[in-house]
Amino acid sequence: MSSQPRRAESGMPTVTMIGGGQLARMTHQSAIALGQCLRVLAAGDAEPAAQVSGDVVLGSHESLEDLRTAAEGAVALTFDHEGVPLHLLEALEADGVAVRPPSAALRFAQDKLDMRNRLSELGLPVPDFADLSGDVAAARDELIAFGERNGWQIVLKAVRGGYDGRGVWLVDGRDEALAVFDAHAGGDTVLMAEQKVSMRRELSAMIARSPYGQGAAWPVVETVQRKGQCAVVLAPAPGLDETVAEQAQRMALRLADELGVVGAMAMELFETVDGELVVNELAMRPHNSGHWTMDGAVTSQFEQHLRAVLDYPLGDTSARAETVVMANVLGADETPEMSVDERMHHLFARMPDAKIHMYGKSERPDRKVGHVNIVGRPGEPVEAVRERAERAATWMSTAVWTDGWNPHTDSIGDLT
Amino acid sequence: MSSQPRRAESGMPTVTMIGGGQLARMTHQSAIALGQCLRVLAAGDAEPAAQVSGDVVLGSHESLEDLRTAAEGAVALTFDHEGVPLHLLEALEADGVAVRPPSAALRFAQDKLDMRNRLSELGLPVPDFADLSGDVAAARDELIAFGERNGWQIVLKAVRGGYDGRGVWLVDGRDEALAVFDAHAGGDTVLMAEQKVSMRRELSAMIARSPYGQGAAWPVVETVQRKGQCAVVLAPAPGLDETVAEQAQRMALRLADELGVVGAMAMELFETVDGELVVNELAMRPHNSGHWTMDGAVTSQFEQHLRAVLDYPLGDTSARAETVVMANVLGADETPEMSVDERMHHLFARMPDAKIHMYGKSERPDRKVGHVNIVGRPGEPVEAVRERAERAATWMSTAVWTDGWNPHTDSIGDLT
Repeated sequence: MSSQPRRAESGMPTVTMIGGGQLARMTHQSAIALGQCLRVLAAGDAEPAAQVSGDVVLGSHESLEDLRTAAEGAVALTFDHEGVPLHLLEALEADGVAVRPPSAALRFAQDKLDMRNRLSELGLPVPDFADLSGDVAAARDELIAFGERNGWQIVLKAVRGGYDGRGVWLVDGRDEALAVFDAHAGGDTVLMAEQKVSMRRELSAMIARSPYGQGAAWPVVETVQRKGQCAVVLAPAPGLDETVAEQAQRMALRLADELGVVGAMAMELFETVDGELVVNELAMRPHNSGHWTMDGAVTSQFEQHLRAVLDYPLGDTSARAETVVMANVLGADETPEMSVDERMHHLFARMPDAKIHMYGKSERPDRKVGHVNIVGRPGEPVEAVRERAERAATWMSTAVWTDGWNPHTDSIGDLT
Repeated sequence: MSSQPRRAESGMPTVTMIGGGQLARMTHQSAIALGQCLRVLAAGDAEPAAQVSGDVVLGSHESLEDLRTAAEGAVALTFDHEGVPLHLLEALEADGVAVRPPSAALRFAQDKLDMRNRLSELGLPVPDFADLSGDVAAARDELIAFGERNGWQIVLKAVRGGYDGRGVWLVDGRDEALAVFDAHAGGDTVLMAEQKVSMRRELSAMIARSPYGQGAAWPVVETVQRKGQCAVVLAPAPGLDETVAEQAQRMALRLADELGVVGAMAMELFETVDGELVVNELAMRPHNSGHWTMDGAVTSQFEQHLRAVLDYPLGDTSARAETVVMANVLGADETPEMSVDERMHHLFARMPDAKIHMYGKSERPDRKVGHVNIVGRPGEPVEAVRERAERAATWMSTAVWTDGWNPHTDSIGDLT
């Protein structure tokens, strides 16, 4: 399948994305508009992006040979996840592959401890943290001292490999903290501890940066987390002080510059109860908190990511509406009997303006299988837009319409 | 390549589109959002849609075997052109394939004479026309009588197979008309004659219709033709009387209903100097006059076409802005030395809000290789939006920036 990828007659460049998930799937949609076809390295041909791209390399992101095959003839190599081992990225760079973001930047997105240290050096606001990576006995003492210092209001994190709530332990007090530590210390999972921030809400500042050094920031959004993963995004973050929003954008742009990030980057932030910003996580790729841009911004994060990795000038990041709300479609605890197809049918009947993005994935509890964007009408309150987005996403997940409508017994209502 | 198409894990339906051109390419982008992968029947793997889809059947739209292969397992079969012979569509329907639009409707888009007769029967306004399909001597007499009746203000047309100005002869008087007739009569090209309408401008009323019978109309647009093909589309048609716009929408919806059209349909119209509407052409598929919807309407024509052929409820057809202008990127008479890639780079630097859609085609004079959409800013006059769109498209075609800027000697200017 990969040996003779089909080529554009037009001689447009090929970008390779490592990973065949939904981020690659949606990047492919933007690649098509730019006259390209995204090449994806996927583990299997049922992966979201592998289903839909005309240029698929099947292989492993942990195999240098497969990575080299995927990179061949591509003008840039980029990622839909942080999972490629650093030494393989460095080997590709030594081959002359344009790895974007470069390994020198990506390591900070792969390693939370390196990231915290680097952010601290740059004077960016981070929660208090403790390095538990060293000698087990010393690290245990360090954890106890750190816990006492923070009244055991702490979180334990895996330094590498966590996402969507995996690799994060929200521990309740000393005993739980030590139990988590003892279960992992000395094993493969390297741990760190962080102060639990008293926060008002979570924000995300998404930007993109090109190799040329151009940066562009989208409006700062509020992210609503459930079960440790992003569930809803409100764009822009409602009632956020303009100077705080600008501060978040500047922090993200500055960090991207300092690290030499190329592509889209999400800086996840806590807004503390005192209205201060604290940096939580970094992702150097398109990100769930940017899915609203597909229908809500002049330039989507996927097009922008491609523009950045190709060193094209970046696109206009303005919002197209006062309010846009994204809600993830998650696999339900019990998969509804009604098929996804039939659920979509009913959704469209009830909400002709809902913009749906399905990833071609099977349903499993809490698995992200799609998202819905609702672009608010002029003057529509954010609460109303959010209610519509959540109702649509809940329906797609569970086949329950939260205003009590039952598609099996009630009429569809007037079609517009 | 076609023997084992990759499947969505999610069990979403497969739609097959016959034809691998840009319309199929852009329909695939919408299929991805709906959790699907568009299957395309293409003549070669370098065709615009074949480059980018993960489910390509290589074959001919004139081969029943290839059509059957492409239709296998698909819930609906649809088209990016009108070229499939009617008897093959009827054979597929006899197999039980959901051909959408059905052959009973599509024949009117394939045969201009049938279409004129049907429109007349329905009482819809058409130009005076003459059937020149019969006995050559009788048809010649008929042409002469028709020409005299219309003061030789007439157009000759091929009844079947014409598009983008091909198969249309804008004849200047009796001698030219008879010369065209004599060159073709008795051959493969069946001719008809039409009165040349004294028109103010051309309009297009685009609608979609589902098998359920739901119809939805986008705002009526003005189309600007050059060298017999669509060059620019202004959405909505500037200064169009609201009742005339509504009349155009109603005519298109009624016709679709009467013919049993399924999918997107463009009704191309003349607005006469007296402000009357006359039907020019019909296309039962996504259409150049609907490309503006990709960035300018809540639901694009490509998503809507899929919703219609799948019998999903149709999407909201509202415009997202006061004015949207589409300009086609055409191959220049002389292909510029600067690559398409480099032209795009410069365009993005100058116009960060230009939305570009390139088709992956090589450049040939006047060939449609892409289009640009400019979404007007609030209050921006239509002339200004149009100027920006045409400047962008001219640049992409010719590497000439019509305000005199020269990318080789002048600076790029401030990036936003």
